[in-house]
Amino acid sequence: MEVTNRYVVIKHNIDGAPLESDFELRTEALSLWIEPGKYDVIVKNLYLSVDPYQLNRMKSPGCFQQDMNFAGAICPGQKINGDGIGRVVASGNPEFKEGDLVSWYCMSWGEYSIIKMSPSNMEGAKLRKIEMMEFPLSYHVALLSLSGITAYAGFFEVCKPKKREKLFVSGASGSVGSLVGQYAKLFGCYVVGCAGSQRKVDLLKEKLGFDEAFNYKEETDLKSALKRYFPDGIDIYFDNVGGEMLEAAIENMNPFGRVAVCGAISEYTDKGRRGAPNMVNVVYKRITIQGFLAADHYKKVYKDFLSTTLEHLQGGKLHVLEDMSHGVESIPSAFAGLFRGDNVGKKMVELLADD
Amino acid sequence: MEVTNRYVVIKHNIDGAPLESDFELRTEALSLWIEPGKYDVIVKNLYLSVDPYQLNRMKSPGCFQQDMNFAGAICPGQKINGDGIGRVVASGNPEFKEGDLVSWYCMSWGEYSIIKMSPSNMEGAKLRKIEMMEFPLSYHVALLSLSGITAYAGFFEVCKPKKREKLFVSGASGSVGSLVGQYAKLFGCYVVGCAGSQRKVDLLKEKLGFDEAFNYKEETDLKSALKRYFPDGIDIYFDNVGGEMLEAAIENMNPFGRVAVCGAISEYTDKGRRGAPNMVNVVYKRITIQGFLAADHYKKVYKDFLSTTLEHLQGGKLHVLEDMSHGVESIPSAFAGLFRGDNVGKKMVELLADD
Repeated sequence: MEVTNRYVVIKHNIDGAPLESDFELRTEALSLWIEPGKYDVIVKNLYLSVDPYQLNRMKSPGCFQQDMNFAGAICPGQKINGDGIGRVVASGNPEFKEGDLVSWYCMSWGEYSIIKMSPSNMEGAKLRKIEMMEFPLSYHVALLSLSGITAYAGFFEVCKPKKREKLFVSGASGSVGSLVGQYAKLFGCYVVGCAGSQRKVDLLKEKLGFDEAFNYKEETDLKSALKRYFPDGIDIYFDNVGGEMLEAAIENMNPFGRVAVCGAISEYTDKGRRGAPNMVNVVYKRITIQGFLAADHYKKVYKDFLSTTLEHLQGGKLHVLEDMSHGVESIPSAFAGLFRGDNVGKKMVELLADD
Repeated sequence: MEVTNRYVVIKHNIDGAPLESDFELRTEALSLWIEPGKYDVIVKNLYLSVDPYQLNRMKSPGCFQQDMNFAGAICPGQKINGDGIGRVVASGNPEFKEGDLVSWYCMSWGEYSIIKMSPSNMEGAKLRKIEMMEFPLSYHVALLSLSGITAYAGFFEVCKPKKREKLFVSGASGSVGSLVGQYAKLFGCYVVGCAGSQRKVDLLKEKLGFDEAFNYKEETDLKSALKRYFPDGIDIYFDNVGGEMLEAAIENMNPFGRVAVCGAISEYTDKGRRGAPNMVNVVYKRITIQGFLAADHYKKVYKDFLSTTLEHLQGGKLHVLEDMSHGVESIPSAFAGLFRGDNVGKKMVELLADD
């Protein structure tokens, strides 16, 4: 059987803020027949994740260091991979059969993902079957996958929190930030988040239970704003944005404060906007600033992460913010919108219509 | 008995680079008689330490956060305290007698130090008798005191080195930097240092045994310079200077690299020169940047520090760079010279002449 697969590529490398016009929708004929002896699996995508870090992979060679042992470059005209889930429609691999629901961090930004596997290709081992269907399927894209583990490992392993410590999280209504704030509240911290609209601020306080939240776009002086929300100083800063907010947080930190650097979205689109944290403060206050990736902590935390997260979900204590676009055509705008702050919670693209 | 005590004060707060004219030499009559019942100790100073961090204590209120639980402000017209050693000339404290050699981190910048003590005042407990006289007396000011412990704790506790890792140290001919590089070499690291003159560079390579050293003032592009000395990347950066050098080091670091932030001398005199390290690198390379103070590690490392340091000294493997000025009048120029890079090794003022 042959189907038509529509997928998205970048037309050229993207070094600034991405625009819809930087992308192109392509069409290919795709045979759902697997050659005998091949272990490939073809997946009809159901939910795709769009994530800010992918922009760094789209930059011109030289703008992004390729020696980081992390996800590779996304090249013009080539398929784009990312997190997602889908249903197996053809399989040469005895471990996966038609109809299986699977998730992988290498789903293609399109209607189908072709996952090349062989008995000796360990990459394929990362394709996971989804069995636990107590919650909406989309939860497996972010909450029970990369976003959730990033938030959990970042908070517990990198921030090393103590109960009653005061935590500040930027990008607080985003995929990771909204979970960090909730894990921290449930653990027993005082939590303040910032976001870029009143609607997001209201959500943080009213739905997610943050102690306080503010709209950073309405603050003329971020240092004073943080001083207002943390008169006794910040113990932990979970940084999703970098730039000026990092500077302001360092200024307001307590001795032995910790900064978990999860992302620096304000710096992805403009190198000129880098923060210049006060290193004199870093020394005298013995601050630790630590960059991290969830993958490094996965093995250590996964079991605890899953049991804690499921327990909070079942108890109705953890709220999931999802922001859904629909159809393969919406991928470019969903992605570009991340850098305009359009999304409220985890941005995803749903591809159910053709199912 | 009454003596004349000459001492140095600042005329006003100093917010930029210090000049000799910011200081004033004052004279007071000092009685060497201790009132019965008082536990005070009067010390004739022999060696005084001048240290860059003291500039931060001289800044205008608001330019330096006083809530850091560290050494307090240095105020105009008041005596200035710092590290030093001297000989007891009067004592009401039965634990110290005339003639004892003592060291303390609160010696006055002048000819005498008056150390107020009482049985309930624990501050006095920090006055230490010097008994081990196998080495020059001046070694007790820096090498066997704050500089040594800072270098040792910073390298072993904060940098957490592994043998054969590649270490870069800035301010490498300074008091702490020169020791860090030597500890690292003796431990088994590859060591490159930077300093501000050819003479210093030669010393690092020829006397201290660094693998490589360079004069940063002769480099137009610090990133490329570090790339040249570290074609396989930096594992550990021991930062004494902050600013652009920190940016360049972050750019050249390997995954899981560690930055120990000991000082940021390039930023002490000019807030505008702050470094803006690339946080995208910090995330993807999982870099840790950690500020530290020796005092926090003192208890844990002191015994190891002392035995390791003495062993290396006795074996002729550790070289001590001292840069001596003479007489109380030379304190202002000794201190101001730190920020011009005049000193080669630990800057001290010797006050033996009047002894």
